[in-house]
Amino acid sequence: MKEITIAVDVMGGDLGAAATVEGAWDAAREYQGVKLLLVGPQETIQAELARLKAASPNKNAHMLEILHASEVITTNETPTVAVKAKKDSSMVRAFHTVKEGRANGLVTAGSTGAVLVSIFTFIKRKPGIKRPALCALLPNKTGHTLLLDCGANAEVKPEYLLQFGQLGSEYMQRCMGIKSPKVGLINIGAEEEKGTPIYQEAHQLLKQSGLNFVGNIEGREIPAGTVDVAICDGFVGNIILKHTEGLSKTLMAIIKEELMAKTLSKIGALLAKPSFANLKKRFDYREIGGAPFLGLTSLVVKAHGSSDAYAIKNAIGQCVKFERDGY
Amino acid sequence: MKEITIAVDVMGGDLGAAATVEGAWDAAREYQGVKLLLVGPQETIQAELARLKAASPNKNAHMLEILHASEVITTNETPTVAVKAKKDSSMVRAFHTVKEGRANGLVTAGSTGAVLVSIFTFIKRKPGIKRPALCALLPNKTGHTLLLDCGANAEVKPEYLLQFGQLGSEYMQRCMGIKSPKVGLINIGAEEEKGTPIYQEAHQLLKQSGLNFVGNIEGREIPAGTVDVAICDGFVGNIILKHTEGLSKTLMAIIKEELMAKTLSKIGALLAKPSFANLKKRFDYREIGGAPFLGLTSLVVKAHGSSDAYAIKNAIGQCVKFERDGY
Repeated sequence: MKEITIAVDVMGGDLGAAATVEGAWDAAREYQGVKLLLVGPQETIQAELARLKAASPNKNAHMLEILHASEVITTNETPTVAVKAKKDSSMVRAFHTVKEGRANGLVTAGSTGAVLVSIFTFIKRKPGIKRPALCALLPNKTGHTLLLDCGANAEVKPEYLLQFGQLGSEYMQRCMGIKSPKVGLINIGAEEEKGTPIYQEAHQLLKQSGLNFVGNIEGREIPAGTVDVAICDGFVGNIILKHTEGLSKTLMAIIKEELMAKTLSKIGALLAKPSFANLKKRFDYREIGGAPFLGLTSLVVKAHGSSDAYAIKNAIGQCVKFERDGY
Repeated sequence: MKEITIAVDVMGGDLGAAATVEGAWDAAREYQGVKLLLVGPQETIQAELARLKAASPNKNAHMLEILHASEVITTNETPTVAVKAKKDSSMVRAFHTVKEGRANGLVTAGSTGAVLVSIFTFIKRKPGIKRPALCALLPNKTGHTLLLDCGANAEVKPEYLLQFGQLGSEYMQRCMGIKSPKVGLINIGAEEEKGTPIYQEAHQLLKQSGLNFVGNIEGREIPAGTVDVAICDGFVGNIILKHTEGLSKTLMAIIKEELMAKTLSKIGALLAKPSFANLKKRFDYREIGGAPFLGLTSLVVKAHGSSDAYAIKNAIGQCVKFERDGY
């Protein structure tokens, strides 16, 4: 088994070092042969590790290594300014370990803007890849659809859309074990000539790409799970991603409101509680752990700002699977 | 009360003349002083009217008038070809009544493509309006958000987006009785400089428009109900519209699946049935009846292909409200 190293930006998430260090601690226990570089304030990390050790032993504790970084980039800072100024921040230091080849992958729950700037500043793109893409794994009827780009490129060229298809297909093979991922181009109709000239041209490129391209897909086919990889520009993708979050949340709130409006329904809801818990789990972003950036020489996973230990552990797991081509 | 005439394309919907004639019959009963022009095969319409009359009398039956049309445009035909060739189709004849000023509004459940072509062929735009927009009323947490454009214009200019704001605002005032509708520009971030150059420029135009413009909104704010009118190009809008349909459907299917997986949950679901029925009603497109096309000298409402009588009645109601500026 290939020995790999993943850098973990310990600071930056809303829950601070406690969540990220615990996530890494759990990941060390779960994934064998994975060294984890904990990047952040040494004393804080040591204190967290001591706390975890006291609670329950971990035979892989020696796989956790601390890399000191004194500063933190917050979500309130202008990303370009912060990345340039805070050379000793946990995020910048973590990205440096990837740049120098010391780490094979990186997990951070820090500001998306700062992550984007760091990627453009420190990380090389894969040979031939024009633009990196921010992805999201959206839950669908039977599994997940990888949506890209989700906001790294508001404007695209047809060639970028083709490459998004290639990158997404590779990811779904390596991380999700799908042999020949179905790829769809998000559009406003199934016919080849639908959409803007950029999408029309991208359709032709994808058709000739050798990918398992199923053609254009409409908005409703993303949740239906028609494809494994759904491609679009970053403007459309970002709106779909946030619309998914918003609509799921609103629907669940409305269901709750309706159930609580009547006594019988309240009892019904109580009886159905385990089912609702199961449902929640299926739509829980923590199961995936974070959004991958693809098209780089290393996998970078942007964990949700509010990630807890479980989400961080799974985000690390994504990097492990990607590096090991499944495991 | 202003006497108005609404043309109803009797053919074109999946349920045929039975549903549309019954919808018009119910509308005649509900809305006073509204003449309804039933456009389609005379014999078929007469038979439906006789059936309805036998079932229950309608003191406003005299407000229903038949305009014979022998042909039908189906969803399988190429819209441009069909609209040109089928001069005696119910859709083309219905559009002619609007063109000639005989009707003030039009309801059709026919092919969206053919409706678009008919609009461009027969209906004048409001003075100064560059492009008509297809709208959708999406249910949100507390009411509805008008989304436009939903597919009539895959590519836009900043000026079109401004006009969509004006048209949407006017509609929400007249049909929904909202005094100063909140207008938002769909974008990938709140900051003015977010998105593509077209959206950046549109933001500035909207800011200076005198509309109640609240700025950029992200995808999650549509279901949250942050605004009354959400503006975007037809590519983005079509994807949001279909994504809403698809995600709501998938979520409900998953909830059902989870509830049916356990006996206790099944009982719970049974007890909560009235609440789920209420929920369904809140998300039922039939309550609104159809998608309005705005920017024309008359209101055209495209009813869903599978519209039943209730949906058609409400689609007619939209035209009535629009013409009467609420009622």
